[in-house]
Amino acid sequence: MADIILTGARPTGPLHLGHYVGALANWVRLQETHTQFVMIADVQALTDNYEFPGRIREHVTTVALDYLAVGIDPTKTTIFIQSAIPEIAELTLFYLNLVTVARLQRNPTVKTEIAQKEFGASIPAGFLMYPVSQAADITIFKARYVPVGEDQLPMIEQTNEIVRAFNRIYKTDVLREAEAIVPPIARLPGTDGKAKMGKSLGNCIYLSDPTDVVQKKVMSMYTDANHLKVSDPGKVEGNPVFAYLDAFDPDKTEVARLKEHYAHGGLGDVVLKKRLLEVLETFLTPIRTRRKEFEQDIPAIMHTVKEGSDHARSIATHTMQQVRGVMCLDYFK
Amino acid sequence: MADIILTGARPTGPLHLGHYVGALANWVRLQETHTQFVMIADVQALTDNYEFPGRIREHVTTVALDYLAVGIDPTKTTIFIQSAIPEIAELTLFYLNLVTVARLQRNPTVKTEIAQKEFGASIPAGFLMYPVSQAADITIFKARYVPVGEDQLPMIEQTNEIVRAFNRIYKTDVLREAEAIVPPIARLPGTDGKAKMGKSLGNCIYLSDPTDVVQKKVMSMYTDANHLKVSDPGKVEGNPVFAYLDAFDPDKTEVARLKEHYAHGGLGDVVLKKRLLEVLETFLTPIRTRRKEFEQDIPAIMHTVKEGSDHARSIATHTMQQVRGVMCLDYFK
Repeated sequence: MADIILTGARPTGPLHLGHYVGALANWVRLQETHTQFVMIADVQALTDNYEFPGRIREHVTTVALDYLAVGIDPTKTTIFIQSAIPEIAELTLFYLNLVTVARLQRNPTVKTEIAQKEFGASIPAGFLMYPVSQAADITIFKARYVPVGEDQLPMIEQTNEIVRAFNRIYKTDVLREAEAIVPPIARLPGTDGKAKMGKSLGNCIYLSDPTDVVQKKVMSMYTDANHLKVSDPGKVEGNPVFAYLDAFDPDKTEVARLKEHYAHGGLGDVVLKKRLLEVLETFLTPIRTRRKEFEQDIPAIMHTVKEGSDHARSIATHTMQQVRGVMCLDYFK
Repeated sequence: MADIILTGARPTGPLHLGHYVGALANWVRLQETHTQFVMIADVQALTDNYEFPGRIREHVTTVALDYLAVGIDPTKTTIFIQSAIPEIAELTLFYLNLVTVARLQRNPTVKTEIAQKEFGASIPAGFLMYPVSQAADITIFKARYVPVGEDQLPMIEQTNEIVRAFNRIYKTDVLREAEAIVPPIARLPGTDGKAKMGKSLGNCIYLSDPTDVVQKKVMSMYTDANHLKVSDPGKVEGNPVFAYLDAFDPDKTEVARLKEHYAHGGLGDVVLKKRLLEVLETFLTPIRTRRKEFEQDIPAIMHTVKEGSDHARSIATHTMQQVRGVMCLDYFK
């Protein structure tokens, strides 16, 4: 069996170009060479959206559609829903014994997110624990590789700490450590040039955006605030239009030429944006076509996800049998 | 259907007279009038015994034997193992979103236990969360009553807070609040007169202790350090021998007479202890007889526990279907 990959996204909204560059592009590639499991992380999404279960439910379908539209192929990749694998919850509870509260509070990713979300003193316990739940996601499938952004590296570290503690305490090698795969371009800036993309920030181009929306978003992209006249020299670094061209324009030589021209002066933002629009339309058109096909039969998509979930659950069940065995919890075997 | 009761004990060692007075006596009585579920809380036991799964496994059988020996009747009470109901873990994870870390850290019972266990800065996350897991235990069976000691009242409060939050957020009445039943004598002191009984303190009389062990323990019980001569007046209050007589001697008039005599002077410790020994032997003999019978066929006991667990799981599964429904997680129904 090829090495196993576990990855996924929270169904909190439609996926955007940032998701594609930082994750989906990688998954489409990796499914050719690996046994890949792609999770729709609804349980994790609920840790900071527990008041909005209907929204999460809706976006499970959105995200499944996005996966299929970009070319995640269910004959090569197992697409499943996290909550359909209750064994993950079981394993999470066992892992919580192996992690201290202080260790969770030190997790850099969670620390940053807690600050961003302004929970204040009211951090939901489920949110603090979600790295442990992630460790269960990864290890229940005995994943060897986890494609993540750089900001997620502490999660893999936490997972491997748990794996080592578990294997040591229960004198076993049932669990395996995982390695991160960080993609070359892990982060795309927002259309406003800010590092963080978000629905609430209104700075994302979605994979499901139609031509006119993409056009509007591209034409109003932030470039260089000091690039007032075409003849002015413009800044390439920190200019999101170039970040997008770097990510999506297959003609790297032309992009290099445009950068030089822009930096030197004489290349207008409109010309540049028109090129980006063309590049993005070329990229998005086949995705839109596939999405349109899949959208015609949502029940078929849910059937695919159910089949994936059943398959994923059979793997998870097998791991849990081993886990219960070494934890002396197999009373009735 | 009669009102449901959920109760149980952690399988961390054989049960002692303190467990009987504070819990088991109540359960034996309650099974006549209620639909009672008695849990062997192995998952909870692991929260502070995760390094010793073999010990927990062993004491699952010990505790099942103790339950049956004192008269918990599997035709009236459902005896089940917590880990055999993975739905509890699922529900626990959903509940963790509804409780803040700060709230868990304020829980008086957990605070006391953390101090006692000397975790220091290394509090296992699983230990901090165990009240949430208890809330899942109670509510997954829709228990109306939970027989507990007074020190456990904050647990019921925490459970009901979660119930109210869940029902409010998910606009449902699927979960029900629970009430504590606190027994009249909730706490028996150790044979050394200390409030806390514990295996490591060596101050417990076990339900499974044979006559000679009980004799040795009773004859060396702490009484009143200033009661040196038989003729000296003795202290009744804080004297564990009287606490045990109060709990186990059916002849309350005689106990009252002995207290007066002892307080006045002229009643020796040996005479008093011999009476207690007699009382305890009368109490323990039928328990020992039943235990001997059950011990002959441990597989039959595990079969009983398996049947109980299967029944408990069918109830838990039904509640989880409702929970998943209101949380919009029933994708494939």
